[in-house]
Amino acid sequence: MRPAATPDPPYYAVIFTSARGHDEQGYEETAARMFELAARQPGYLGVETAPGITVSYWRDEAAIAGWKMDAEHAAARAEGRGRWYDAFEVRIARVERAYGFERPA
Amino acid sequence: MRPAATPDPPYYAVIFTSARGHDEQGYEETAARMFELAARQPGYLGVETAPGITVSYWRDEAAIAGWKMDAEHAAARAEGRGRWYDAFEVRIARVERAYGFERPA
Repeated sequence: MRPAATPDPPYYAVIFTSARGHDEQGYEETAARMFELAARQPGYLGVETAPGITVSYWRDEAAIAGWKMDAEHAAARAEGRGRWYDAFEVRIARVERAYGFERPA
Repeated sequence: MRPAATPDPPYYAVIFTSARGHDEQGYEETAARMFELAARQPGYLGVETAPGITVSYWRDEAAIAGWKMDAEHAAARAEGRGRWYDAFEVRIARVERAYGFERPA
């Protein structure tokens, strides 16, 4: 995956790690919709996702709080607890330093 | 994936996001060795990994610095730049809040 093109720190990361159960009904559609909605939120900086780990990046804590209050997002979280996930952990972290590498062409 | 069993915040996360190239020689063995060595480091709290994203958790910045100074780890990083990765980003973040969910049995 290409790393998200985030600005210089500080900014925030929400690290969402999950174990899914066997009920997958509606999961993919809802996940796709959440990526779409999150990207429209004020203060959204980018996302990186792989099976079981999604990291989203945000300008500040207010942007994270705004996204958490989105009504469709709240409904999706409720369905996640009720249906899709066996376990998950959400960690809110302040990115303090970052460095990258890009292979010269 | 089961979320790593981390303590109450604050603690640190190192978010490593990578795009691999087509040279895979030695990658799997070295990656396995790095997970093994990291887990022995003082201040290591756990790791979560999926293709393209690895998040490791640490007690404090000193623990991260200690791991960065490990000689085998330094050699592996050099090989990563020279051989395996097209691009990567390393973000060092302070976990400020966390919450989880576990489905009742």
